[in-house]
Amino acid sequence: MKPLLLALLAVLPASAVLAADPEVPYPTGYRYWHHVKSMVIEQGHPQFDGFGGIHHIYANASALEGYKAGTFPDGSVLVFDRLEAKRADNAVTEGARKDVAVMLKDAKKFAATGGWGFEAFGGGDPTRPVVGADAASTCYACHAPEKAHDYVFSRTRD
Amino acid sequence: MKPLLLALLAVLPASAVLAADPEVPYPTGYRYWHHVKSMVIEQGHPQFDGFGGIHHIYANASALEGYKAGTFPDGSVLVFDRLEAKRADNAVTEGARKDVAVMLKDAKKFAATGGWGFEAFGGGDPTRPVVGADAASTCYACHAPEKAHDYVFSRTRD
Repeated sequence: MKPLLLALLAVLPASAVLAADPEVPYPTGYRYWHHVKSMVIEQGHPQFDGFGGIHHIYANASALEGYKAGTFPDGSVLVFDRLEAKRADNAVTEGARKDVAVMLKDAKKFAATGGWGFEAFGGGDPTRPVVGADAASTCYACHAPEKAHDYVFSRTRD
Repeated sequence: MKPLLLALLAVLPASAVLAADPEVPYPTGYRYWHHVKSMVIEQGHPQFDGFGGIHHIYANASALEGYKAGTFPDGSVLVFDRLEAKRADNAVTEGARKDVAVMLKDAKKFAATGGWGFEAFGGGDPTRPVVGADAASTCYACHAPEKAHDYVFSRTRD
């Protein structure tokens, strides 16, 4: 590696280096993909610490085929878009983005985690991947029991 | 009108006749349009009777331009897709569809109601329009104060 590049890397924050070539990239444009379903998780729910708030699932075109087929083709991307759930006056409204979690199917590359790569971007910031090398313990461990649905929890609906 | 057609109309339910040529048609394919935002309205909210449940707003391509421009071009369609909100175990999940409410912009045709035509389809059934000629009192009366936003309550978000 050239000295200048090494020097540049030395002054960059770790997150910027990770973002330069993440295993699972930020899913640019996902807010214009198909909205699969939504859910609100509130205090007292066993998943509140990791998933509290209102979340929406989005699927790219390949992932849509996957829901229908039962197994997802390589290139499928699913996004779990989590916002704060603001409760007031007998309503729940959307607040700030908490994170954007992503599943990317590549059966060969991610064979150790069911064929899926996992990442999450803190605050929805493409330069803040927060999972990195911890995908097996942080994400796949919970998805593993969903093997019959190709490790995907969500189902499409009309 | 031919006697056979008259006889046919006589045995059809009123909803089927309305559906044959609704002013505001069912928004076929809206579940693949842009998801604008979502909200949960619960018992005790002043709008619960009419809008209780979890709803998602979808916009077609023209309506998306409208959000950006501040006024919506003719052909803009906004959908208010309302599902039952099932509350259990500190979570809110989506239930059956309650109705699909639609706004269609045609400044000339719907001049009396801010340039928007309004309809809603009970249970999401394209053959069950439930607003018909009551759009002014049922829908526009509440939207009128939003004149500064071209009578649209929702705003886009990232």
